[in-house]
Amino acid sequence: MKTLKDKIRFEGRVLSSQVLKVDSFLNHQIDPRLMAEVGKEFANRFKKENITKVLTIESSGIAPGLMAALELEVPVVFARKRKSLTLVNDLLTASVHSFTKNETNEISVSNQFLMQDDRVLIIDDFLANGQAALGLVDIVKASGAEVAGIGIVIEKSFQNGGSLLREKGFRVESLARISSLEGGVQFLAEVEAALL
Amino acid sequence: MKTLKDKIRFEGRVLSSQVLKVDSFLNHQIDPRLMAEVGKEFANRFKKENITKVLTIESSGIAPGLMAALELEVPVVFARKRKSLTLVNDLLTASVHSFTKNETNEISVSNQFLMQDDRVLIIDDFLANGQAALGLVDIVKASGAEVAGIGIVIEKSFQNGGSLLREKGFRVESLARISSLEGGVQFLAEVEAALL
Repeated sequence: MKTLKDKIRFEGRVLSSQVLKVDSFLNHQIDPRLMAEVGKEFANRFKKENITKVLTIESSGIAPGLMAALELEVPVVFARKRKSLTLVNDLLTASVHSFTKNETNEISVSNQFLMQDDRVLIIDDFLANGQAALGLVDIVKASGAEVAGIGIVIEKSFQNGGSLLREKGFRVESLARISSLEGGVQFLAEVEAALL
Repeated sequence: MKTLKDKIRFEGRVLSSQVLKVDSFLNHQIDPRLMAEVGKEFANRFKKENITKVLTIESSGIAPGLMAALELEVPVVFARKRKSLTLVNDLLTASVHSFTKNETNEISVSNQFLMQDDRVLIIDDFLANGQAALGLVDIVKASGAEVAGIGIVIEKSFQNGGSLLREKGFRVESLARISSLEGGVQFLAEVEAALL
């Protein structure tokens, strides 16, 4: 997605070979028009999947998840993150380890909002080690619903989350795939070719 | 706003005389089409205020904030909540006490995203005691920018946040004002009249 990649090129800040900061348009300040385009692109890529619900995770997944859901004309549910969770009956939960922060959070979704016959599109802002996406997959499975696809705004392809999810058979669509942050942002060539 | 009030009537769950749960369309599951309407309504009410930025707070403020920002064609910034915050130079911070949870959170916004000449529209999902909104006001003031208005999706008018903010001279626009939760949801009569 060219607009997104241009935005990453011009406004993304590479803090280390592992860390890209995009808090001027995605993680803290949000560019609503870009998010509308991101939502349209996700809807376009998954339009044949009969999506009935979008599932994302607070806080940075909400904007792209909402815009995708608006285009697909389905509700969006966001999983909540908590350090530890007292056991509550009506919650679907999963543990998500963050390698960056070196902490494990419980994520949860009320079981009212995922039904057995739902076809769920999982949306998140970043894909790195895939732990958040896998946690969301676990929650969908626990509900009896089906994961119809996974949509990612920015995939760091040099980390293993993308392969992990694709090897499990999930359709993962990432709107920008970064192959390296060494000496600036490098995008995966295949994506360049496909979207030009 | 009639659509919103109907949604509250039909899907809101009154848990006590103080607590209304709207997690089927606003706080956990989100109705994207309703949020688009909410965004349009905020934009319409504040269109003459020369808004340059929307400020909201994670997580439930993001959806209505994003949609208002999309309509107003300005960026949206969401404040982050943390239990305690190590002092960081480039953050604007405020303390927000939650009476419901009986805990105090630090909220913060990077000083990069609020400028002296910004005219800021503060958006939040709920207004009860007004502590979150006041925290956001503090952050705007600390940045040197101006609060151009406060837009609230659901105001619990029987709590004192609305009066507190209006007495301070802020223009507060709430799309649904609830006068009481005793025996079901009661809306303020003036709002009924104005919007029918």
